[in-house]
Amino acid sequence: MIETIQWIDDAVVMIDQRRLPVEEKYVTCRTYQEVAVAIKDMVIRGAPAIGVAAAMGVALGVLHAPEGDLDAQFSAICGTLAQTRPTAVNLFWAIDRMKRLYGSLAGLPIASIRRTMIEEALRVRAEDIAICRAIGRNGAALVPDERTILTHCNAGALATAGYGTALGVIRAAVEAGKRVDVFADETRPFLQGARLTVWELQQDGIPTTLITDNMAGHFLKSGRIGCVVVGADRIAANGDVANKIGTYSVAVLARENNVPFFVAAPISTLDLTLASGDLIPIEQRAASEVTHVFGQPVAPAGAAVANPAFDVTPARYVSAIITERGVARAPYEDSLRRFAAAISARS
Amino acid sequence: MIETIQWIDDAVVMIDQRRLPVEEKYVTCRTYQEVAVAIKDMVIRGAPAIGVAAAMGVALGVLHAPEGDLDAQFSAICGTLAQTRPTAVNLFWAIDRMKRLYGSLAGLPIASIRRTMIEEALRVRAEDIAICRAIGRNGAALVPDERTILTHCNAGALATAGYGTALGVIRAAVEAGKRVDVFADETRPFLQGARLTVWELQQDGIPTTLITDNMAGHFLKSGRIGCVVVGADRIAANGDVANKIGTYSVAVLARENNVPFFVAAPISTLDLTLASGDLIPIEQRAASEVTHVFGQPVAPAGAAVANPAFDVTPARYVSAIITERGVARAPYEDSLRRFAAAISARS
Repeated sequence: MIETIQWIDDAVVMIDQRRLPVEEKYVTCRTYQEVAVAIKDMVIRGAPAIGVAAAMGVALGVLHAPEGDLDAQFSAICGTLAQTRPTAVNLFWAIDRMKRLYGSLAGLPIASIRRTMIEEALRVRAEDIAICRAIGRNGAALVPDERTILTHCNAGALATAGYGTALGVIRAAVEAGKRVDVFADETRPFLQGARLTVWELQQDGIPTTLITDNMAGHFLKSGRIGCVVVGADRIAANGDVANKIGTYSVAVLARENNVPFFVAAPISTLDLTLASGDLIPIEQRAASEVTHVFGQPVAPAGAAVANPAFDVTPARYVSAIITERGVARAPYEDSLRRFAAAISARS
Repeated sequence: MIETIQWIDDAVVMIDQRRLPVEEKYVTCRTYQEVAVAIKDMVIRGAPAIGVAAAMGVALGVLHAPEGDLDAQFSAICGTLAQTRPTAVNLFWAIDRMKRLYGSLAGLPIASIRRTMIEEALRVRAEDIAICRAIGRNGAALVPDERTILTHCNAGALATAGYGTALGVIRAAVEAGKRVDVFADETRPFLQGARLTVWELQQDGIPTTLITDNMAGHFLKSGRIGCVVVGADRIAANGDVANKIGTYSVAVLARENNVPFFVAAPISTLDLTLASGDLIPIEQRAASEVTHVFGQPVAPAGAAVANPAFDVTPARYVSAIITERGVARAPYEDSLRRFAAAISARS
């Protein structure tokens, strides 16, 4: 069993997702700066996993910050981690959670602050696995039996602390006895689908067929696909969903062919401060991700490239948003706010 | 200037499109069997170029067939070439054209038959370039000025004997003074867009941006794209279009965002014997095209793969079909039949 991210001997250990499945190599981060680089370089990716990494990064920073300069260092730690990737809101959610806790610890002995921050980071990780299980339970009922599920990118154990969001729904459906198989979009340019989703589902023995992204429409039209399940990087108050580039296309093609399109995500992916998805910042990544595959050029030198890492799927294409608190349906302004409030009241 | 396919010293010489743009290497076919292998292995690809290759392959076969056994050999030659790739109808169109000519030459001296067959293959090639120029002229007016044109796969000089169909329309628009730029889908798995379209348009100095296939929807939604132009491998009587896998997705996303979707193809791409696109045979290609990029694995060993090389875009998504005889509009049953009849009457 591969672990996405762990806290071991006062270091953050991550499986290197840039090299999977060719190589199963772990990266050990001993400073918060190393955690920040790992997030930026996509050693770890997936919105919930990025949240866990950020929480652990903050804890690691506090662990090593000199006592006399803790408050200033804490700002630098949070600022550095917040500047790694702009789209997944779970990053900011995790940093804010660590900030609130830190604020409440003022005046305590530094050893106690350090221990409490590390415990909180471990709690973020443990909660994430429990949340994924709950998302799976809530989503399993939506998956049609004896059909094919299409997924895009990797919203699996590798995108979370374990079990996964979209793949959690698929796993829970299989555990509930449904006989399903999966079509996995390869998800260029980073190939999360080919490299990570196929690999994860192979290990679980869930029958999976790899397709290129541009085949999804063809198979949605063919009648073979019973539903689509994807993850999310940020969900606006109106239900617009930012997720891996290509998600919008799959959503449009699903609706065109009357196939339900489900988004599976924790409440921490909601950003109710944004009225609509138009306001979600979309990360632009390096051209080399498109022009090269594992270092091999696939385009002529000097090619101009666009590389938006995410797109926004308007809420009207989303059949339901599956969270750990239940299944949200349109109108999302109401349903998402209700779920978020339930959480706030509880915490 | 690169030539896609030429007849040189009683051999068929093709640029190896599997290696472009990394390497500019020519393949010389000295037998019709070598031409068949080159078509099957995609040394040459693109519906019109495949037609030219098939015509030259037939001529090469006749050139080397022993005089006493010419009729039987001729059947074998045509049969072998017809079994290379099932979807692009231009292959069968070219073989039929060579068959009809061969039938009309019965009783002539073998030297005369051979010379006439070679001349006909050269004529297929020369006509193809002229046809592409006419498609370009007819299509240039449809291209909106000062906007971005999205194209999928490579329907350029490399997909034809020269100039191209979809890229012919773009080239003609630029020659007519329109200030346009191009977004090129990389077109997995064979990467015709990244490797061939970007390379061709770079050489012409037409500003081109490479994107992954799953970004097309995002940019169609953004308002940046003024029109889509693609080629075709086979067009049914009702206007349904078989073209490179992913074309259907682009067409749906174009209509969803009110962007005109144009198909540029010669009359030889029409197959009026098929009432609808559902009847077009779709080639399934090897899994390794998806699991490996230039020999580098991008998926775990043993991954199941689907690899349909083409999809079918229903006519309702097609704004116009640009041919060398003019621009066909819906209802395509009428317009395509009219254009085809004009050709038949002429030939």
